[in-house]
Amino acid sequence: MSVNTVYVGRKPILNYVLACMTLFKSGASEVLIKARGRAISRAVDVVEVMRNRFMPDIKVEDIKIGTEEMVSEDTNTPTNISTIEIKITR
Amino acid sequence: MSVNTVYVGRKPILNYVLACMTLFKSGASEVLIKARGRAISRAVDVVEVMRNRFMPDIKVEDIKIGTEEMVSEDTNTPTNISTIEIKITR
Repeated sequence: MSVNTVYVGRKPILNYVLACMTLFKSGASEVLIKARGRAISRAVDVVEVMRNRFMPDIKVEDIKIGTEEMVSEDTNTPTNISTIEIKITR
Repeated sequence: MSVNTVYVGRKPILNYVLACMTLFKSGASEVLIKARGRAISRAVDVVEVMRNRFMPDIKVEDIKIGTEEMVSEDTNTPTNISTIEIKITR
């Protein structure tokens, strides 16, 4: 299993772009970008910004979507949240 | 090219789930779910809710991401927006 994983959350898109590029520059041939819930859109932005502006030679190898169960701290009830995993290679 | 396309926007998730299910029930073997920008997360939700709650037999056949150029009405300048296309089959 690849350890080159970048989790996309609420920070600016370029933070995650930089994280991915650093992994590639340090020799990684494959980076996995993961996100949940509303951050899913941002994960797609990260890939697209990286591909269009900084590293045109990356390829989207695979995209998986799924569901995880999360327990909210407020209500203590389990809710489902969508997930995405985007595998990019260079 | 398939005409069975559902565009996901700002309406509640179940509206789009219902639209997809109606297409399948009326004989479609393939439905394409498209979204842009922040609606990308919602498009993933649509597929996951449909698969987990209503139609466990659907399969995610292919997922594509991309970029479109949009011209904002406010500023009149072109901006890039990420897109997603999720092809599901039954």
